[in-house]
Amino acid sequence: MREVFHQSLEDVRHRLVEISELVTVAIDKATRAFATSDVTLAEEVIENDAVIDEKALSLDELAIEILARQQPVARDLRIVVSALRVSASLERMGDIAEHIAQLTRMRYPERAIPKGLKSTFTKMGELDVEVAEKLTELLRTEELALVAELRNADDKLDELHVSVFEKVLSDSWQGEASATIDATLASRYLERFGDHAVSVAKKVSYLATGDWRTETDTVDVIAFPSP
Amino acid sequence: MREVFHQSLEDVRHRLVEISELVTVAIDKATRAFATSDVTLAEEVIENDAVIDEKALSLDELAIEILARQQPVARDLRIVVSALRVSASLERMGDIAEHIAQLTRMRYPERAIPKGLKSTFTKMGELDVEVAEKLTELLRTEELALVAELRNADDKLDELHVSVFEKVLSDSWQGEASATIDATLASRYLERFGDHAVSVAKKVSYLATGDWRTETDTVDVIAFPSP
Repeated sequence: MREVFHQSLEDVRHRLVEISELVTVAIDKATRAFATSDVTLAEEVIENDAVIDEKALSLDELAIEILARQQPVARDLRIVVSALRVSASLERMGDIAEHIAQLTRMRYPERAIPKGLKSTFTKMGELDVEVAEKLTELLRTEELALVAELRNADDKLDELHVSVFEKVLSDSWQGEASATIDATLASRYLERFGDHAVSVAKKVSYLATGDWRTETDTVDVIAFPSP
Repeated sequence: MREVFHQSLEDVRHRLVEISELVTVAIDKATRAFATSDVTLAEEVIENDAVIDEKALSLDELAIEILARQQPVARDLRIVVSALRVSASLERMGDIAEHIAQLTRMRYPERAIPKGLKSTFTKMGELDVEVAEKLTELLRTEELALVAELRNADDKLDELHVSVFEKVLSDSWQGEASATIDATLASRYLERFGDHAVSVAKKVSYLATGDWRTETDTVDVIAFPSP
């Protein structure tokens, strides 16, 4: 019985890593499709999001079954509880990758990235892939040094997000309303990956510390550009 | 012991309703502040969000403690597991209300609602308050007829969200880039309340059915305007 139990917990962790890997692939493909107007790649992301959704739901069901049948305590309980939160964040990251792919497809054969923002959005996309890779590594290893790295990457994403608004609000911006909408939503989505990653990282810290809340739980995210 | 246990479960439900009430107040104040450029009201929302965050964290801790000490099964377990998800959605709804309040404050003394969108945003705000009230009622009563009402309200919010994009993309739109950004983000935020409410409603359905997934778990939300 004890052995079956530990196999289940290993299964939970293994599945979290697997979902995180799928999310990483989705973010990589979505941001590359967005940068290069690759509609085939975008469609792959849109199609594959159902796999991520299914795996997240299935992981939740496993976690609930473990709670019901095996009544874990201490660290084992923390693994299961945090998995229920982490799966929701990963699933949402998959949705956001899908949104970026949808934008790419909607604007095709035009390019989805408004003029003048290509290098910023390329940087944000690369950072997002890096964030997803670090997150997968954190889930695999619980190496807490990665938490600080994720926070740094999130800060950089916030700065780039602000720089998109600065660009759009500058005198040199020639974009029409549709380009402004695209820039605003795409930047918001690309920035949100970082928030979700930090949120997952907190739950991995909880595994180690047993403390559900962290000192940064009430820090604001960037919601609007400065006037 | 049994009695203490049921008191804890009652406490979980009572706290969820309490947080949902606070979120309702935040949405009501934030959308009214946004519609009337009331910076004092906006500041109240911004200040009070920490209370919602704290109550959500504290509820999570209670839920984890119940799992650890009382090892609930069946419906009792479902109450605790769903509470862990619902608290995250309610906390996020509070954040979004805060974002709307921040926009109001940032644009003050100018009005935050771009010209031509006042009636649409007023309608969205009223619907959001209605959604939050129904959600509170659902958490209080578990009256599943409310789930369908929440889905209907969410559909109406999606339609209004699309109508904002139609307006901004029409020839009559005179707004500058900053107005387009405000319209895009505000509409996105006002629309997201509905998504979160439907997500919570699914978890309340789970209490009744024991089925974690629903037929609509993979339905898309509106991410981008049509070209």
